[in-house]
Order: sequence, then C-alpha cells, then structure tokens
Amino acid sequence: MFISFEGTEGVGKTTLIHKIRDYFLEQSKQVVLTREPGGTPLAEQIRSVLLTVNHEERMSNDTELLLMYAARAQHLQQVIMPALENSSIVLCDRFCDSSFAYQCAGRGLSREKLALLNQNFVLKMPDLTFWLDAPTELGMQRARARGALDRFEQEKAAFFEKVRAGFAELHQLEPNRVKRIDATQSPEQVFNDAIERISSWKAEHKC
Amino acid sequence: MFISFEGTEGVGKTTLIHKIRDYFLEQSKQVVLTREPGGTPLAEQIRSVLLTVNHEERMSNDTELLLMYAARAQHLQQVIMPALENSSIVLCDRFCDSSFAYQCAGRGLSREKLALLNQNFVLKMPDLTFWLDAPTELGMQRARARGALDRFEQEKAAFFEKVRAGFAELHQLEPNRVKRIDATQSPEQVFNDAIERISSWKAEHKC
Repeated sequence: MFISFEGTEGVGKTTLIHKIRDYFLEQSKQVVLTREPGGTPLAEQIRSVLLTVNHEERMSNDTELLLMYAARAQHLQQVIMPALENSSIVLCDRFCDSSFAYQCAGRGLSREKLALLNQNFVLKMPDLTFWLDAPTELGMQRARARGALDRFEQEKAAFFEKVRAGFAELHQLEPNRVKRIDATQSPEQVFNDAIERISSWKAEHKC
Repeated sequence: MFISFEGTEGVGKTTLIHKIRDYFLEQSKQVVLTREPGGTPLAEQIRSVLLTVNHEERMSNDTELLLMYAARAQHLQQVIMPALENSSIVLCDRFCDSSFAYQCAGRGLSREKLALLNQNFVLKMPDLTFWLDAPTELGMQRARARGALDRFEQEKAAFFEKVRAGFAELHQLEPNRVKRIDATQSPEQVFNDAIERISSWKAEHKC
C-alpha cells in the first residue's frame, strides 16, 4: 500500500504521517516513511538545489519541474518500488500531486508537460492520497513559526491560493484516490478521518 | 547562429571551440562560449550532481536524463536564448545530441522518452552541429592523460563504442545539421573543415 500526503505548507502533514506510521507499526506492519523531493541521498542533493534561495539566478519553471522528476525517478527506483515489492507500507510526504499543484496550478506550467512526465517517468502512483486542506494563511503562520522559509515557503499568499485550488482540482478529477481531509480539525480528528479512509480502501480492495 | 560540438571524450572539442571563437572574434562578432551540462551557476550545480562518482547509490537512467534536461532548460533560458536574441554566435560544448548518444545509444534509454523531452523542453536546436569523430580508444587515452576521470569517463570501452554509434546514427538522421569531422586529423585541418561547413551554411542561409 502506497499512501501520499499532500497540502500547502503548515497543514499538519508531518504530524499525520507519524501518527499513521505508529498505527501501522502497532499492527506489526513494515512501514517506510519517506518524503519528496528527496528520499535518497542523491534525491536529497537534488532537493537542496530545489529549495535553496538564490537571488542571483531565477530558476526556470521547466528546470524546477525537471529537477522534481529527476529526484522522483531516483526515489521511485531506489526506495518506493523496492519497499512495495517487499510488501511494506509506503508513506510519502508529497508526491506527483504536489508537482501538479505547485508547478501547474501555482506557476502556470502546462498540464500537458506534467502529464507527459507522469506517463513516462512515474512507475507507480499512490493507492491513496490524503489532501490536508486548510485556509492557506493558517498554514503559513505555522510555517513561519518553524523558522527561516525555503524557496517555496517564500512565495506570496496568492501563490498558495492557486496551489490550494490545484489540490481541489485533483480531488475533483480523481476522487477515488485523492481524499480531502479538513485540516482545521484537531490532529486526533484528522488522524481518525484518515484511518477511516484507509479502512474503506482496504475493505474495497479486500486486503 | 547556434553551433554545438559533439563527440566522445578526448576528441578535441575544446581546442576546436576556442579556435572557432577566435575566428569569429577576429571578425568582430559577439560570441558566447558555453557548455553542457552547465553554463549557468545553477546548471553547473546540477552538472556536479551528474558527474560526481558515488559508489553508494547508483543513479537511475531516468534520473540522469531528467537532470540533463533540467540543466539544459536553465541553460537555454538564461544563456542561449538571450544570446541568440542579442545576435551573438553561441558555441556550445555538447547539447541534445549528447543525451541521445550517451543516454539512449549508450545506456539503452528509450528514444521516445528523449524525443518527448526534446519536443517539450528544448526551445531551440542548434543550426549546425560538429560531430568530432575518432576511434574511442584514442580519445580515452587523451582523457586519462588529463587526470582523474569523472562518472562518464569511467565507463568501459564498449559503452563509448555505443556512444560513437549513437552520433553516427544522428549524423545519418539529420545530415543537414549534424556534420561529421574526422578528428584524427591535425587540429588545423579539423578547424579548416569546420570553417568550410560554417561558410556553406552561411551561403545557404544567406547570412
């Protein structure tokens, strides 16, 4: 089972992922917790290129997208595919949907380019995706409270509104995979909502 | 005018590029000399990820290809396109054809994937490409004499034979753009051959 966690900054993805990992560990399941961009030493190197603030040279939208997919290709081949073949549960902080929301909906990059990359370079899509949805200002307050902002976190409020709309679009396009969770709720309620959806998915897929 | 220089390691690309730069400078032309992967600070950062030898983690073929195109997208937008718009002559050490020769012909990556990336992420192909062709063993001797070998230079002889065959394939597919130059000749003769072809191209394109 491959689950990804999506949403704008500060909506509580990390808290939820850790709770779900503990939930599966208590059931003696094997769990691989990972994140994008990154997840392997080489992909983390690419992540640092992506997140570094550089005032001298603007990163082109195409470059950003291709770096994301370079890191993703490495992550899929080195971590996600081997873990799934080993019957582990993979919990991934961000995946393809973030590229759609940030690069296409946020920056206006063509959806066709993204679709091409997904079709040709993504070996496996998540079985289930949790979109943690909250007003973007709430999340930005939390992100700022965590300390210095990275290149993405430094974007303006209007950008995050577009990103949020991008996730909403995905939720509409693929309702069976992308599940919205109200992230203004308490962490416990967010967790309960997620577990409920995992149980439904398992019942549906008889596992 | 946009000219790229291709070939396996040690065939004399750098020597030829410098001679051609001097030739155009003597005519008071503006020349931008650049290289791939790289050509901007950010693209050079990606280059260093690409060329670093890492014994702990094998880079997947898809990752390698996507990193090449991430660097290329940045290079095109920051350097090549502005220079061409400014009527400079761009001389580029390696470009898309290296991806074809090394990643497709060399590593067996699908030609369709490469074609998709070229169609969607390469805004401008070279007007003229010089393929410096020499037996690969000759070039490898020169590369070894230069010092420590990078990740590509460490490949085995059979790999470079495939890369050379890849360049030959391109030369057959696009004879108007990709010109073969016999790189076993003296540097002066290689330079004369190149200038002859540049003159023909200019005559054909009336510039």
